[in-house]
Amino acid sequence: MGRVTVRRPVLRINADGTRQRPDTLAAEEPLELRVDSRPLTVTMRTPGSDVELAHGFLLTESVITGKTDVATARYCDSPGPDGRNTYNVLDVQLASGVAPPDASVERNFYTTSSCGVCGKAALDAVRLSTHHPPASDSLETTPETLTELPERLREAQRVFDSTGGLHAAGLFDSSGELLAVREDVGRHNAVDKVLGWALLQERVPLAGCMINVSGRASFELVQKAAMAGIPLLAAVSAPSSLAVELAEEQGMTLVGFLRGSSMNVYTGAERIRTAEAAVGH
Amino acid sequence: MGRVTVRRPVLRINADGTRQRPDTLAAEEPLELRVDSRPLTVTMRTPGSDVELAHGFLLTESVITGKTDVATARYCDSPGPDGRNTYNVLDVQLASGVAPPDASVERNFYTTSSCGVCGKAALDAVRLSTHHPPASDSLETTPETLTELPERLREAQRVFDSTGGLHAAGLFDSSGELLAVREDVGRHNAVDKVLGWALLQERVPLAGCMINVSGRASFELVQKAAMAGIPLLAAVSAPSSLAVELAEEQGMTLVGFLRGSSMNVYTGAERIRTAEAAVGH
Repeated sequence: MGRVTVRRPVLRINADGTRQRPDTLAAEEPLELRVDSRPLTVTMRTPGSDVELAHGFLLTESVITGKTDVATARYCDSPGPDGRNTYNVLDVQLASGVAPPDASVERNFYTTSSCGVCGKAALDAVRLSTHHPPASDSLETTPETLTELPERLREAQRVFDSTGGLHAAGLFDSSGELLAVREDVGRHNAVDKVLGWALLQERVPLAGCMINVSGRASFELVQKAAMAGIPLLAAVSAPSSLAVELAEEQGMTLVGFLRGSSMNVYTGAERIRTAEAAVGH
Repeated sequence: MGRVTVRRPVLRINADGTRQRPDTLAAEEPLELRVDSRPLTVTMRTPGSDVELAHGFLLTESVITGKTDVATARYCDSPGPDGRNTYNVLDVQLASGVAPPDASVERNFYTTSSCGVCGKAALDAVRLSTHHPPASDSLETTPETLTELPERLREAQRVFDSTGGLHAAGLFDSSGELLAVREDVGRHNAVDKVLGWALLQERVPLAGCMINVSGRASFELVQKAAMAGIPLLAAVSAPSSLAVELAEEQGMTLVGFLRGSSMNVYTGAERIRTAEAAVGH
Protein backbone atom coordinates (compact mmCIF):
# COMPACT_ATOMS: atom_id res chain seq x y z
CA MET A 1 0.00 0.00 0.00
CA GLY A 2 1.20 3.49 -0.80
CA ARG A 3 2.68 5.94 1.61
CA VAL A 4 0.74 8.97 2.81
CA THR A 5 3.84 11.01 3.60
CA VAL A 6 7.45 10.89 2.45
CA ARG A 7 10.53 12.16 4.31
CA ARG A 8 13.13 14.12 2.38
CA PRO A 9 16.09 16.35 3.21
CA VAL A 10 15.48 20.03 2.56
CA LEU A 11 17.66 23.12 2.68
CA ARG A 12 15.91 25.67 4.88
CA ILE A 13 16.89 29.30 4.14
CA ASN A 14 15.79 32.16 6.36
CA ALA A 15 17.15 35.30 7.99
CA ASP A 16 19.24 33.17 10.36
CA GLY A 17 21.08 31.45 7.55
CA THR A 18 20.75 28.05 5.90
CA ARG A 19 20.53 24.59 7.35
CA GLN A 20 19.79 21.10 6.12
CA ARG A 21 16.91 19.35 7.82
CA PRO A 22 14.45 16.56 7.10
CA ASP A 23 11.02 17.56 5.79
CA THR A 24 7.79 15.62 5.50
CA LEU A 25 6.00 15.76 2.15
CA ALA A 26 2.49 14.75 1.19
CA ALA A 27 2.71 11.69 -1.05
CA GLU A 28 1.36 12.01 -4.57
CA GLU A 29 0.94 9.05 -6.93
CA PRO A 30 -1.20 8.47 -10.01
CA LEU A 31 -4.27 6.23 -9.66
CA GLU A 32 -5.79 4.72 -12.77
CA LEU A 33 -9.46 3.94 -12.29
CA ARG A 34 -10.87 1.23 -14.52
CA VAL A 35 -14.55 0.34 -14.79
CA ASP A 36 -15.39 -3.15 -16.04
CA SER A 37 -11.68 -3.44 -16.96
CA ARG A 38 -11.71 -0.34 -19.19
CA PRO A 39 -9.59 2.71 -18.22
CA LEU A 40 -11.84 5.61 -17.21
CA THR A 41 -9.53 8.21 -15.68
CA VAL A 42 -6.12 8.82 -14.12
CA THR A 43 -5.98 11.08 -11.08
CA MET A 44 -2.96 12.27 -9.10
CA ARG A 45 -3.86 11.41 -5.52
CA THR A 46 -2.42 10.74 -2.10
CA PRO A 47 -2.45 6.94 -1.65
CA GLY A 48 -4.99 5.58 0.83
CA SER A 49 -8.79 5.23 0.85
CA ASP A 50 -8.60 4.36 -2.85
CA VAL A 51 -11.74 2.22 -2.77
CA GLU A 52 -13.64 5.10 -1.18
CA LEU A 53 -12.14 7.46 -3.75
CA ALA A 54 -13.40 5.24 -6.58
CA HIS A 55 -16.89 4.98 -5.07
CA GLY A 56 -17.08 8.73 -4.48
CA PHE A 57 -15.88 9.51 -8.00
CA LEU A 58 -18.41 7.14 -9.57
CA LEU A 59 -21.21 8.51 -7.37
CA THR A 60 -20.47 12.12 -8.28
CA GLU A 61 -20.06 11.26 -11.97
CA SER A 62 -23.55 9.73 -11.90
CA VAL A 63 -22.34 6.20 -12.66
CA ILE A 64 -23.53 4.59 -9.40
CA THR A 65 -26.15 5.57 -6.82
CA GLY A 66 -25.51 3.03 -4.06
CA LYS A 67 -22.98 0.46 -2.90
CA THR A 68 -24.92 -2.41 -4.48
CA ASP A 69 -24.17 -0.88 -7.91
CA VAL A 70 -20.58 -2.07 -7.43
CA ALA A 71 -19.90 -5.81 -7.59
CA THR A 72 -16.17 -5.65 -6.77
CA ALA A 73 -13.41 -3.04 -6.40
CA ARG A 74 -9.92 -4.54 -6.62
CA TYR A 75 -6.36 -3.42 -7.26
CA CYS A 76 -5.03 -4.78 -10.55
CA ASP A 77 -1.66 -6.40 -10.74
CA SER A 78 0.44 -3.41 -11.80
CA PRO A 79 4.13 -4.06 -11.09
CA GLY A 80 6.38 -1.04 -10.76
CA PRO A 81 10.09 -0.81 -11.65
CA ASP A 82 10.99 -2.94 -8.62
CA GLY A 83 8.57 -5.70 -9.67
CA ARG A 84 6.23 -5.06 -6.76
CA ASN A 85 2.59 -4.09 -7.19
CA THR A 86 2.21 -0.31 -7.28
CA TYR A 87 -1.42 -0.51 -6.04
CA ASN A 88 -2.05 2.35 -8.44
CA VAL A 89 -4.56 0.67 -10.74
CA LEU A 90 -8.02 -0.04 -9.34
CA ASP A 91 -10.69 -1.91 -11.26
CA VAL A 92 -14.36 -1.53 -10.36
CA GLN A 93 -16.72 -4.16 -11.71
CA LEU A 94 -20.25 -2.81 -11.84
CA ALA A 95 -23.20 -4.93 -10.76
CA SER A 96 -25.21 -6.43 -13.58
CA GLY A 97 -27.64 -3.95 -15.07
CA VAL A 98 -25.57 -0.87 -14.16
CA ALA A 99 -24.63 1.08 -17.28
CA PRO A 100 -20.90 1.77 -17.70
CA PRO A 101 -19.80 5.40 -17.83
CA ASP A 102 -19.32 7.43 -20.95
CA ALA A 103 -15.55 7.44 -21.25
CA SER A 104 -15.45 10.14 -23.91
CA VAL A 105 -13.52 13.31 -23.35
CA GLU A 106 -16.63 15.45 -23.19
CA ARG A 107 -17.89 14.08 -19.94
CA ASN A 108 -21.47 12.96 -19.56
CA PHE A 109 -22.63 16.12 -17.87
CA TYR A 110 -21.73 18.21 -20.88
CA THR A 111 -23.26 15.99 -23.53
CA THR A 112 -26.76 16.20 -22.02
CA SER A 113 -27.07 19.81 -23.06
CA SER A 114 -28.11 21.01 -26.46
CA CYS A 115 -26.12 24.23 -26.32
CA GLY A 116 -22.39 24.77 -26.47
CA VAL A 117 -20.18 24.27 -23.48
CA CYS A 118 -21.14 26.95 -20.99
CA GLY A 119 -21.88 27.38 -17.35
CA LYS A 120 -25.62 27.02 -18.02
CA ALA A 121 -25.06 23.65 -19.68
CA ALA A 122 -23.01 22.49 -16.70
CA LEU A 123 -25.77 23.61 -14.29
CA ASP A 124 -28.47 21.88 -16.35
CA ALA A 125 -26.51 18.66 -16.45
CA VAL A 126 -26.11 18.51 -12.66
CA ARG A 127 -29.84 19.15 -12.27
CA LEU A 128 -30.61 16.32 -14.66
CA SER A 129 -28.21 13.86 -13.12
CA THR A 130 -28.52 14.29 -9.35
CA HIS A 131 -30.88 11.85 -7.68
CA HIS A 132 -30.83 13.82 -4.45
CA PRO A 133 -31.50 17.53 -5.09
CA PRO A 134 -30.73 19.29 -1.80
CA ALA A 135 -33.29 22.08 -2.35
CA SER A 136 -35.95 20.70 0.00
CA ASP A 137 -33.55 19.66 2.77
CA SER A 138 -34.70 21.12 6.10
CA LEU A 139 -31.22 21.42 7.65
CA GLU A 140 -30.95 24.30 10.09
CA THR A 141 -27.72 25.43 11.70
CA THR A 142 -26.14 28.46 13.37
CA PRO A 143 -23.09 30.63 12.70
CA GLU A 144 -21.60 29.30 15.95
CA THR A 145 -21.84 25.70 14.73
CA LEU A 146 -20.34 26.62 11.38
CA THR A 147 -17.38 28.51 12.79
CA GLU A 148 -16.37 25.40 14.73
CA LEU A 149 -16.11 23.20 11.65
CA PRO A 150 -12.67 24.25 10.36
CA GLU A 151 -11.10 23.71 13.77
CA ARG A 152 -12.69 20.26 14.09
CA LEU A 153 -11.51 19.44 10.61
CA ARG A 154 -7.98 20.51 11.41
CA GLU A 155 -7.92 18.54 14.65
CA ALA A 156 -8.95 15.44 12.78
CA GLN A 157 -6.33 15.87 10.07
CA ARG A 158 -3.55 13.51 10.84
CA VAL A 159 -1.27 14.47 8.02
CA PHE A 160 -1.72 18.19 7.49
CA ASP A 161 0.26 19.32 10.49
CA SER A 162 3.31 17.43 9.34
CA THR A 163 3.28 18.42 5.67
CA GLY A 164 1.25 21.59 5.26
CA GLY A 165 0.46 20.20 1.85
CA LEU A 166 -2.87 18.40 1.94
CA HIS A 167 -6.42 19.43 1.26
CA ALA A 168 -9.05 18.07 3.64
CA ALA A 169 -12.78 17.46 3.40
CA GLY A 170 -14.88 16.80 6.49
CA LEU A 171 -18.44 15.54 6.64
CA PHE A 172 -20.50 16.75 9.61
CA ASP A 173 -24.01 16.10 10.89
CA SER A 174 -26.38 18.99 11.53
CA SER A 175 -25.09 19.50 15.07
CA GLY A 176 -21.51 19.86 13.84
CA GLU A 177 -20.36 16.37 14.86
CA LEU A 178 -17.63 15.10 12.55
CA LEU A 179 -18.67 11.96 10.66
CA ALA A 180 -15.59 11.48 8.50
CA VAL A 181 -12.51 13.34 7.31
CA ARG A 182 -10.25 12.51 4.37
CA GLU A 183 -7.14 14.23 3.02
CA ASP A 184 -5.51 14.38 -0.38
CA VAL A 185 -3.16 16.47 -2.52
CA GLY A 186 -6.23 17.09 -4.69
CA ARG A 187 -9.23 18.78 -3.09
CA HIS A 188 -11.67 16.95 -5.39
CA ASN A 189 -10.12 13.65 -4.30
CA ALA A 190 -10.54 14.52 -0.61
CA VAL A 191 -14.24 15.16 -1.28
CA ASP A 192 -14.62 11.97 -3.34
CA LYS A 193 -13.03 9.94 -0.53
CA VAL A 194 -15.43 11.33 2.07
CA LEU A 195 -18.44 10.78 -0.21
CA GLY A 196 -17.25 7.27 -1.06
CA TRP A 197 -17.03 6.54 2.66
CA ALA A 198 -20.63 7.73 3.06
CA LEU A 199 -21.81 5.64 0.12
CA LEU A 200 -20.17 2.51 1.53
CA GLN A 201 -21.82 3.29 4.89
CA GLU A 202 -25.15 3.54 3.03
CA ARG A 203 -25.55 7.13 4.23
CA VAL A 204 -26.17 8.64 0.78
CA PRO A 205 -28.24 10.82 0.29
CA LEU A 206 -26.55 12.86 3.00
CA ALA A 207 -29.71 14.68 4.10
CA GLY A 208 -29.14 17.12 6.94
CA CYS A 209 -25.35 16.94 6.58
CA MET A 210 -22.69 19.60 5.99
CA ILE A 211 -19.34 19.34 4.23
CA ASN A 212 -16.36 21.56 5.03
CA VAL A 213 -13.42 21.88 2.64
CA SER A 214 -10.03 23.35 3.48
CA GLY A 215 -9.59 25.37 0.31
CA ARG A 216 -11.72 27.10 -2.29
CA ALA A 217 -15.18 26.12 -3.51
CA SER A 218 -15.16 25.38 -7.23
CA PHE A 219 -18.02 24.30 -9.47
CA GLU A 220 -16.73 20.75 -9.24
CA LEU A 221 -16.94 20.60 -5.43
CA VAL A 222 -20.49 22.00 -5.34
CA GLN A 223 -21.41 19.49 -8.03
CA LYS A 224 -20.05 16.62 -5.96
CA ALA A 225 -21.96 17.78 -2.87
CA ALA A 226 -25.16 18.10 -4.94
CA MET A 227 -24.77 14.59 -6.34
CA ALA A 228 -24.57 13.24 -2.77
CA GLY A 229 -27.57 15.29 -1.59
CA ILE A 230 -25.62 17.47 0.86
CA PRO A 231 -27.54 20.71 1.61
CA LEU A 232 -24.59 22.81 2.88
CA LEU A 233 -21.01 23.28 1.68
CA ALA A 234 -18.65 25.50 3.68
CA ALA A 235 -15.24 26.47 2.32
CA VAL A 236 -12.39 28.16 4.12
CA SER A 237 -11.56 30.21 1.01
CA ALA A 238 -13.37 31.85 -1.90
CA PRO A 239 -16.00 30.28 -4.15
CA SER A 240 -16.00 30.77 -7.91
CA SER A 241 -18.87 32.37 -9.79
CA LEU A 242 -20.09 29.06 -11.18
CA ALA A 243 -19.90 27.41 -7.75
CA VAL A 244 -22.31 30.06 -6.45
CA GLU A 245 -24.59 29.72 -9.48
CA LEU A 246 -24.78 25.96 -9.08
CA ALA A 247 -25.43 26.17 -5.33
CA GLU A 248 -28.27 28.61 -6.00
CA GLU A 249 -29.72 26.48 -8.77
CA GLN A 250 -29.56 23.41 -6.51
CA GLY A 251 -31.03 25.14 -3.46
CA MET A 252 -27.83 24.44 -1.55
CA THR A 253 -26.33 26.64 1.17
CA LEU A 254 -22.87 27.83 0.17
CA VAL A 255 -20.58 29.43 2.75
CA GLY A 256 -17.13 30.85 1.91
CA PHE A 257 -14.28 32.53 3.77
CA LEU A 258 -15.23 30.58 6.91
CA ARG A 259 -12.48 31.87 9.20
CA GLY A 260 -12.51 32.68 12.89
CA SER A 261 -15.98 33.91 13.77
CA SER A 262 -16.84 35.26 10.32
CA MET A 263 -18.11 33.90 7.03
CA ASN A 264 -19.75 34.89 3.77
CA VAL A 265 -23.07 33.24 2.94
CA TYR A 266 -23.53 33.18 -0.83
CA THR A 267 -26.73 31.14 -1.14
CA GLY A 268 -29.31 29.43 1.06
CA ALA A 269 -28.93 31.80 4.02
CA GLU A 270 -32.33 30.61 5.31
CA ARG A 271 -30.65 27.49 6.73
CA ILE A 272 -28.41 29.60 8.98
CA ARG A 273 -30.24 30.89 12.03
CA THR A 274 -28.49 34.08 13.11
CA ALA A 275 -29.01 35.87 16.43
CA GLU A 276 -30.89 38.59 14.57
CA ALA A 277 -33.19 36.01 13.00
CA ALA A 278 -33.75 34.42 16.42
CA VAL A 279 -34.70 37.80 17.86
CA GLY A 280 -37.15 38.21 15.04
CA HIS A 281 -38.88 34.91 15.85
CA MET B 1 -15.74 37.44 -24.32
CA GLY B 2 -16.15 36.02 -20.83
CA ARG B 3 -16.00 37.93 -17.63
CA VAL B 4 -13.01 37.63 -15.28
CA THR B 5 -14.99 38.60 -12.18
CA VAL B 6 -18.66 38.55 -11.28
CA ARG B 7 -20.46 40.71 -8.70
CA ARG B 8 -22.95 39.04 -6.38
CA PRO B 9 -24.74 39.95 -3.15
CA VAL B 10 -23.44 38.10 -0.10
CA LEU B 11 -24.56 37.88 3.51
CA ARG B 12 -21.53 38.69 5.67
CA ILE B 13 -21.73 37.21 9.19
CA ASN B 14 -19.21 38.13 11.88
CA ALA B 15 -19.02 39.05 15.54
CA ASP B 16 -20.67 42.41 14.78
CA GLY B 17 -23.76 40.82 13.27
CA THR B 18 -24.92 40.23 9.73
CA ARG B 19 -25.14 42.51 6.74
CA GLN B 20 -25.81 42.21 3.07
CA ARG B 21 -23.10 43.52 0.78
CA PRO B 22 -21.85 43.01 -2.76
CA ASP B 23 -18.98 40.60 -3.28
CA THR B 24 -16.66 40.04 -6.24
CA LEU B 25 -16.18 36.44 -7.37
CA ALA B 26 -13.62 34.92 -9.69
CA ALA B 27 -15.40 33.83 -12.85
CA GLU B 28 -15.31 30.13 -13.70
CA GLU B 29 -16.54 28.72 -17.02
CA PRO B 30 -15.84 25.49 -18.90
CA LEU B 31 -13.55 25.67 -21.92
CA GLU B 32 -13.64 22.86 -24.43
CA LEU B 33 -10.38 22.55 -26.32
CA ARG B 34 -10.59 20.91 -29.73
CA VAL B 35 -7.62 19.97 -31.87
CA ASP B 36 -8.21 19.60 -35.59
CA SER B 37 -11.94 19.83 -34.78
CA ARG B 38 -11.88 16.85 -32.37
CA PRO B 39 -12.63 17.43 -28.65
CA LEU B 40 -9.50 16.91 -26.55
CA THR B 41 -10.35 18.16 -23.08
CA VAL B 42 -12.72 20.32 -21.04
CA THR B 43 -11.20 22.48 -18.32
CA MET B 44 -12.91 24.77 -15.83
CA ARG B 45 -11.12 28.06 -16.23
CA THR B 46 -11.39 31.79 -15.70
CA PRO B 47 -12.21 33.32 -19.10
CA GLY B 48 -9.44 35.31 -20.73
CA SER B 49 -6.11 34.42 -22.36
CA ASP B 50 -7.78 31.33 -23.82
CA VAL B 51 -5.51 31.19 -26.86
CA GLU B 52 -2.48 31.30 -24.56
CA LEU B 53 -4.09 28.64 -22.38
CA ALA B 54 -4.52 26.37 -25.39
CA HIS B 55 -0.93 26.90 -26.54
CA GLY B 56 0.44 26.29 -23.05
CA PHE B 57 -1.64 23.16 -22.61
CA LEU B 58 -0.54 21.73 -25.96
CA LEU B 59 3.11 22.60 -25.23
CA THR B 60 3.08 20.91 -21.84
CA GLU B 61 1.21 17.88 -23.21
CA SER B 62 3.98 17.48 -25.80
CA VAL B 63 1.69 18.14 -28.78
CA ILE B 64 3.46 21.29 -30.04
CA THR B 65 6.96 22.68 -29.53
CA GLY B 66 6.67 26.14 -31.10
CA LYS B 67 4.11 28.63 -32.38
CA THR B 68 4.55 27.48 -35.96
CA ASP B 69 3.09 24.09 -34.97
CA VAL B 70 -0.29 25.84 -34.75
CA ALA B 71 -1.96 26.95 -37.98
CA THR B 72 -4.98 28.65 -36.39
CA ALA B 73 -6.64 28.95 -32.97
CA ARG B 74 -10.26 30.11 -33.17
CA TYR B 75 -13.39 30.14 -31.05
CA CYS B 76 -16.08 27.87 -32.46
CA ASP B 77 -19.62 29.06 -32.82
CA SER B 78 -21.09 27.76 -29.56
CA PRO B 79 -24.32 29.58 -28.73
CA GLY B 80 -25.43 29.60 -25.11
CA PRO B 81 -29.01 29.71 -23.79
CA ASP B 82 -29.36 33.35 -24.85
CA GLY B 83 -28.28 32.53 -28.40
CA ARG B 84 -24.98 34.41 -28.07
CA ASN B 85 -21.61 32.77 -28.55
CA THR B 86 -20.27 31.48 -25.22
CA TYR B 87 -16.65 31.73 -26.41
CA ASN B 88 -16.14 28.50 -24.48
CA VAL B 89 -15.12 26.22 -27.34
CA LEU B 90 -11.71 26.80 -28.91
CA ASP B 91 -10.46 24.87 -31.92
CA VAL B 92 -6.75 24.62 -32.67
CA GLN B 93 -5.79 23.52 -36.16
CA LEU B 94 -2.30 22.08 -36.17
CA ALA B 95 0.17 22.91 -38.91
CA SER B 96 0.62 20.25 -41.53
CA GLY B 97 2.91 17.47 -40.37
CA VAL B 98 2.20 17.97 -36.65
CA ALA B 99 0.79 14.78 -35.14
CA PRO B 100 -2.52 15.20 -33.32
CA PRO B 101 -2.58 14.29 -29.63
CA ASP B 102 -3.60 10.97 -28.20
CA ALA B 103 -7.10 11.71 -26.94
CA SER B 104 -7.39 8.49 -24.96
CA VAL B 105 -8.12 8.57 -21.27
CA GLU B 106 -4.69 7.28 -20.35
CA ARG B 107 -2.80 10.32 -21.41
CA ASN B 108 0.25 10.06 -23.60
CA PHE B 109 2.73 10.42 -20.79
CA TYR B 110 1.46 7.26 -19.14
CA THR B 111 1.34 5.06 -22.20
CA THR B 112 5.03 5.45 -22.92
CA SER B 113 5.92 3.34 -19.92
CA SER B 114 5.98 -0.43 -19.85
CA CYS B 115 5.11 -0.70 -16.16
CA GLY B 116 1.84 -0.03 -14.42
CA VAL B 117 0.78 3.47 -13.52
CA CYS B 118 3.22 4.69 -10.92
CA GLY B 119 5.28 7.72 -10.08
CA LYS B 120 8.30 6.22 -11.83
CA ALA B 121 6.34 5.83 -15.04
CA ALA B 122 5.23 9.45 -14.84
CA LEU B 123 8.84 10.60 -14.30
CA ASP B 124 10.08 8.50 -17.21
CA ALA B 125 7.44 9.87 -19.50
CA VAL B 126 8.33 13.50 -18.78
CA ARG B 127 12.00 12.69 -19.41
CA LEU B 128 11.12 11.12 -22.74
CA SER B 129 8.84 13.91 -23.86
CA THR B 130 10.53 17.16 -22.85
CA HIS B 131 12.58 18.80 -25.58
CA HIS B 132 14.16 21.20 -23.12
CA PRO B 133 15.54 19.34 -20.08
CA PRO B 134 16.45 22.05 -17.57
CA ALA B 135 19.32 20.06 -16.00
CA SER B 136 22.16 21.91 -17.73
CA ASP B 137 20.67 25.40 -17.32
CA SER B 138 23.21 27.72 -15.73
CA LEU B 139 20.71 30.00 -13.96
CA GLU B 140 22.10 31.45 -10.75
CA THR B 141 20.02 33.47 -8.29
CA THR B 142 19.99 34.52 -4.63
CA PRO B 143 17.60 34.08 -1.71
CA GLU B 144 17.02 37.85 -1.79
CA THR B 145 15.84 37.73 -5.41
CA LEU B 146 13.59 34.75 -4.70
CA THR B 147 11.92 36.30 -1.68
CA GLU B 148 10.85 39.26 -3.78
CA LEU B 149 8.97 37.15 -6.33
CA PRO B 150 5.71 36.55 -4.43
CA GLU B 151 5.32 40.26 -3.71
CA ARG B 152 5.94 41.15 -7.35
CA LEU B 153 3.46 38.49 -8.39
CA ARG B 154 0.83 39.86 -6.05
CA GLU B 155 1.38 43.43 -7.19
CA ALA B 156 0.84 42.33 -10.76
CA GLN B 157 -2.33 40.41 -9.99
CA ARG B 158 -5.18 42.55 -11.08
CA VAL B 159 -7.96 40.27 -9.94
CA PHE B 160 -6.73 38.58 -6.79
CA ASP B 161 -7.15 41.50 -4.48
CA SER B 162 -10.82 41.83 -5.35
CA THR B 163 -11.82 38.17 -5.16
CA GLY B 164 -9.28 36.31 -3.02
CA GLY B 165 -10.11 33.40 -5.26
CA LEU B 166 -7.56 33.14 -8.03
CA HIS B 167 -4.32 31.27 -8.44
CA ALA B 168 -1.50 33.14 -10.13
CA ALA B 169 1.60 32.12 -12.03
CA GLY B 170 4.38 34.59 -12.77
CA LEU B 171 7.29 34.17 -15.12
CA PHE B 172 10.51 36.00 -14.17
CA ASP B 173 13.92 36.44 -15.71
CA SER B 174 17.06 35.56 -13.77
CA SER B 175 17.24 39.00 -12.17
CA GLY B 176 13.70 38.72 -10.83
CA GLU B 177 12.08 40.98 -13.43
CA LEU B 178 8.50 39.94 -14.12
CA LEU B 179 7.95 38.86 -17.72
CA ALA B 180 4.29 37.82 -17.52
CA VAL B 181 1.62 36.99 -14.96
CA ARG B 182 -1.65 35.14 -15.50
CA GLU B 183 -4.45 34.22 -13.11
CA ASP B 184 -7.05 31.47 -13.07
CA VAL B 185 -9.35 29.53 -10.75
CA GLY B 186 -7.18 26.51 -11.66
CA ARG B 187 -3.48 26.71 -10.85
CA HIS B 188 -2.56 24.48 -13.82
CA ASN B 189 -4.45 26.87 -16.10
CA ALA B 190 -2.57 29.88 -14.72
CA VAL B 191 0.70 28.11 -15.55
CA ASP B 192 -0.52 27.06 -19.00
CA LYS B 193 -1.52 30.65 -19.77
CA VAL B 194 1.92 31.98 -18.84
CA LEU B 195 3.69 29.26 -20.82
CA GLY B 196 1.39 29.82 -23.79
CA TRP B 197 2.28 33.50 -23.67
CA ALA B 198 5.97 32.58 -23.73
CA LEU B 199 5.47 30.17 -26.63
CA LEU B 200 3.65 32.82 -28.66
CA GLN B 201 6.50 35.25 -27.87
CA GLU B 202 8.92 32.58 -29.16
CA ARG B 203 10.64 32.53 -25.77
CA VAL B 204 10.42 28.74 -25.28
CA PRO B 205 12.67 27.10 -24.08
CA LEU B 206 12.65 29.45 -21.10
CA ALA B 207 16.35 29.12 -20.31
CA GLY B 208 17.45 31.16 -17.31
CA CYS B 209 13.87 31.89 -16.24
CA MET B 210 11.99 31.26 -13.01
CA ILE B 211 8.31 30.60 -12.42
CA ASN B 212 6.49 31.48 -9.20
CA VAL B 213 3.09 29.96 -8.36
CA SER B 214 0.73 31.19 -5.66
CA GLY B 215 -0.23 27.80 -4.27
CA ARG B 216 1.25 24.34 -3.92
CA ALA B 217 3.68 22.59 -6.24
CA SER B 218 2.18 19.40 -7.64
CA PHE B 219 3.71 16.89 -10.05
CA GLU B 220 1.68 18.49 -12.81
CA LEU B 221 3.14 21.98 -12.29
CA VAL B 222 6.73 20.71 -12.21
CA GLN B 223 5.98 18.73 -15.36
CA LYS B 224 4.70 21.84 -17.12
CA ALA B 225 7.79 23.83 -16.12
CA ALA B 226 10.04 21.01 -17.33
CA MET B 227 8.28 20.84 -20.69
CA ALA B 228 8.97 24.56 -21.16
CA GLY B 229 12.62 24.26 -20.11
CA ILE B 230 12.29 26.39 -16.95
CA PRO B 231 15.13 25.62 -14.50
CA LEU B 232 13.49 26.96 -11.32
CA LEU B 233 9.98 26.67 -9.89
CA ALA B 234 9.13 28.46 -6.64
CA ALA B 235 5.84 27.82 -4.83
CA VAL B 236 4.35 29.75 -1.95
CA SER B 237 3.08 26.51 -0.39
CA ALA B 238 4.15 22.88 -0.07
CA PRO B 239 5.31 20.58 -2.84
CA SER B 240 4.14 16.98 -3.12
CA SER B 241 6.50 14.01 -3.00
CA LEU B 242 6.24 13.40 -6.73
CA ALA B 243 6.82 17.07 -7.52
CA VAL B 244 10.14 16.85 -5.67
CA GLU B 245 11.06 13.56 -7.35
CA LEU B 246 10.38 14.98 -10.79
CA ALA B 247 12.31 18.19 -10.10
CA GLU B 248 15.28 16.10 -8.96
CA GLU B 249 15.06 13.79 -11.96
CA GLN B 250 14.89 16.82 -14.29
CA GLY B 251 17.71 18.73 -12.61
CA MET B 252 15.30 21.54 -11.78
CA THR B 253 15.48 23.80 -8.72
CA LEU B 254 12.32 23.44 -6.63
CA VAL B 255 11.58 25.95 -3.87
CA GLY B 256 8.57 25.66 -1.54
CA PHE B 257 7.08 27.66 1.34
CA LEU B 258 8.49 30.85 -0.16
CA ARG B 259 7.16 33.32 2.41
CA GLY B 260 8.66 36.47 3.86
CA SER B 261 12.41 35.98 3.96
CA SER B 262 12.38 32.20 4.23
CA MET B 263 12.02 29.23 1.91
CA ASN B 264 12.63 25.50 1.61
CA VAL B 265 14.90 24.36 -1.19
CA TYR B 266 14.01 20.79 -2.16
CA THR B 267 16.23 20.25 -5.18
CA GLY B 268 18.86 22.09 -7.21
CA ALA B 269 20.18 24.23 -4.33
CA GLU B 270 23.36 24.85 -6.35
CA ARG B 271 21.50 27.50 -8.36
CA ILE B 272 20.84 29.55 -5.21
CA ARG B 273 23.87 31.50 -4.08
CA THR B 274 23.51 32.02 -0.33
CA ALA B 275 25.60 34.41 1.78
CA GLU B 276 27.40 31.42 3.26
CA ALA B 277 28.26 30.10 -0.18
CA ALA B 278 29.50 33.57 -1.17
CA VAL B 279 31.76 33.69 1.87
CA GLY B 280 33.18 30.34 0.85
CA HIS B 281 34.03 31.60 -2.62
